[in-house]
Amino acid sequence: MRTLCHDLTAATPGTEVVLEGWVHRRRELARVTFLVVRDRSGLAQVVLPAGSTVPPEETTVRVTGTATANAQAPGGVEVTSAVVEALTDDALTPPAELWRPALDVSLPTLLDHAPVLWRHPAQRARWELAAASLRGFRSTLDGLGFTEIATPKLVGSATESGSSVFEVDYFGRPAYLAQSPQFYKQQMVGVFERVYEVGPVFRAEPHDTVRHLAEYRSLDVELGFVRDHRDVLAVLREVLAGMVAAVTEREDAVVRTGARVPLVPDEIPVIHFADALALVGAPADEPDLAPEHERALGAWALAEHGSDFVAVEGYPMAKRPFYTHPWSRDGAGAPPRPTEPARWSNSFDLLFRGLELVTGGQRLHRPGDYEQALRARGEDPETQAAYLQAFRHGMPPHGGFAIGLERWVGRLVEAANVREVTPFPRDLHRLAP
Amino acid sequence: MRTLCHDLTAATPGTEVVLEGWVHRRRELARVTFLVVRDRSGLAQVVLPAGSTVPPEETTVRVTGTATANAQAPGGVEVTSAVVEALTDDALTPPAELWRPALDVSLPTLLDHAPVLWRHPAQRARWELAAASLRGFRSTLDGLGFTEIATPKLVGSATESGSSVFEVDYFGRPAYLAQSPQFYKQQMVGVFERVYEVGPVFRAEPHDTVRHLAEYRSLDVELGFVRDHRDVLAVLREVLAGMVAAVTEREDAVVRTGARVPLVPDEIPVIHFADALALVGAPADEPDLAPEHERALGAWALAEHGSDFVAVEGYPMAKRPFYTHPWSRDGAGAPPRPTEPARWSNSFDLLFRGLELVTGGQRLHRPGDYEQALRARGEDPETQAAYLQAFRHGMPPHGGFAIGLERWVGRLVEAANVREVTPFPRDLHRLAP
Repeated sequence: MRTLCHDLTAATPGTEVVLEGWVHRRRELARVTFLVVRDRSGLAQVVLPAGSTVPPEETTVRVTGTATANAQAPGGVEVTSAVVEALTDDALTPPAELWRPALDVSLPTLLDHAPVLWRHPAQRARWELAAASLRGFRSTLDGLGFTEIATPKLVGSATESGSSVFEVDYFGRPAYLAQSPQFYKQQMVGVFERVYEVGPVFRAEPHDTVRHLAEYRSLDVELGFVRDHRDVLAVLREVLAGMVAAVTEREDAVVRTGARVPLVPDEIPVIHFADALALVGAPADEPDLAPEHERALGAWALAEHGSDFVAVEGYPMAKRPFYTHPWSRDGAGAPPRPTEPARWSNSFDLLFRGLELVTGGQRLHRPGDYEQALRARGEDPETQAAYLQAFRHGMPPHGGFAIGLERWVGRLVEAANVREVTPFPRDLHRLAP
Repeated sequence: MRTLCHDLTAATPGTEVVLEGWVHRRRELARVTFLVVRDRSGLAQVVLPAGSTVPPEETTVRVTGTATANAQAPGGVEVTSAVVEALTDDALTPPAELWRPALDVSLPTLLDHAPVLWRHPAQRARWELAAASLRGFRSTLDGLGFTEIATPKLVGSATESGSSVFEVDYFGRPAYLAQSPQFYKQQMVGVFERVYEVGPVFRAEPHDTVRHLAEYRSLDVELGFVRDHRDVLAVLREVLAGMVAAVTEREDAVVRTGARVPLVPDEIPVIHFADALALVGAPADEPDLAPEHERALGAWALAEHGSDFVAVEGYPMAKRPFYTHPWSRDGAGAPPRPTEPARWSNSFDLLFRGLELVTGGQRLHRPGDYEQALRARGEDPETQAAYLQAFRHGMPPHGGFAIGLERWVGRLVEAANVREVTPFPRDLHRLAP
């Protein structure tokens, strides 16, 4: 019966224990040899006679020995009188010493050697926080009456625009990889009313920045019977609080990553796009926020509201997709905006520590509004007939949002590049390992 | 403040309530008009004066009225003195009456009109069981120390074979859609020891059967430090029990689908492939089980063991992928197999009601074994260098399995075709909606 390293502390001294794991570190001293074993739960110390042969670091081993109390050992218990059995051939030397407290490698080295370098406890912990976040995301939404859905990634036409989509040879005819589950999650609001999906999305944009990937994990939410985007934002607040709570539960991983876990305020500060432009000193006719504007707004939210999060609402309609609901005066959530009402939308971005993390908002729900919106952009509604079908059959006022998982974890652990928080990133240059 | 239809039962008679949902059914009688509202939680009855105008079925509405006890009403409470406000334009008539107990449409009609026809409570319930299954899958594995992972769907080479893979134009060079997360989940065993993933997998096989899809949801599991495939099977048993428990919790959806929820025995019956061939009267040199053999084995397991599940172990090496571990005599789980030991593998299929639902087994873990296995199949180990890197850096004995979500739900509700249990199936002919 195997004992996990973490549970060795609780083993009765004098009993036989079996550890299974990786050789994390060998230390050959004059009078004794130490072997540190690593498994999914943590580390354990094994004491062997001087001159013992121990397989090289990263080899998998089974250690059979006696649990022995030792105040000096990590956890207060070590293994003595041990027999070490290798479970595979001697491991190749990794490109970095994984037993050192910090993993000090360049980004290309990390990416090229992901399968071995992600074993480093501090590196592994980054993804453990991602996994915890997914758990918190789902459990929050399950508790709010949402249904998990799975929508197709192979689609017959480009979702939102034809400019940044991967083409697939689909049994001899062209198909595309879904840029987002947007159209499908909206249609599924007609069925389940409240839906979410965690899945890959694909962007063929030739970006080469520290925050874009060609394939990433999108945490998508959509819900019906909202008054306006403020109701959507309220659900987003609950979701973030649930993700933070789940991350906090993984205290060991928080410590290993050095993550600063944010507080989610009871109400996330909201600023209108027009006010945001004024605040950061940008021209009043700017259609979008530049990265430096986002950083300035993040600093403002922290200074003024003590919040790592800030929502910017009312983004100009001109920069939002055709399904975006225009700014509404009658929504019970958001205050009226008397100046230039036609310019603004019921949509928002959420910034986390000065970086865009979430895009969301209210969508159109009347079929006539869709036809008008498409025509206004010079598109024939017929090209979106399958999508519009759901609206002709009766849809509620609805909205939703999408969180980028890698950006979330990246900001959480304050990584310089999203490629540092996912083992196998995909971008313009990288398709392996 | 909105009241969900399901919660109307608990409303204090005489208080004002607001329902929001779809017009499920209108019934205009001589002296009264009934409106049945449907939301995500269920149905509620609204009583209106005769001759009232009610929007057509499927239109979304807000109903404001008085909760009134009525023993005749579903749930014992109905809404009277009601004002009905349409939230969108009058809905188009659906291709079937969604208020009838059964949805009686052909498969092509169901698929072409998925966004509206999946609103039928019995149809929607099928996916609600899928969502519950996902929840049970994850919570079981979270409890067993597994880490959720997300592996790339865009890959640089075909995962297991070049014959059935979709090609993607990846910034001007060829990439492929992952047929499975097999190689990545194995590599991540080196990091997290126990991993799982729920994600899309893509098969470009021109199958046109009732059980194959070109894109489906795979529930993948992989774990280290196993003795042999019997340890993997033991985890699969726990996972199935967790999925069944979660399905059972959704009693309302079980009732609406008419699903027969299986019992998961404490130990799933296991039969060796050679014995399975003999049992079904197939020639002893058959390399695989035909669908009729699977059905016969399912019937045998039910009759002999009272089990809806049966595992067939020891599949011929010749029909298994190169990473398959050969039959081992020293594993503590499976009994020795003295005849033709080289022919058999430490792998299994799990049949659910006579249909292959899961494939799993132990994998090779020594780098030398991989090189030998690839060479024996005429492949150059260099072509798999990135994959083999993890094994050279020290991997434990490990194994895993993959469950097809649509097949699971299909068998659960005894659907004739997997296309009936997922709203947007993809196959040789179908890429829309």
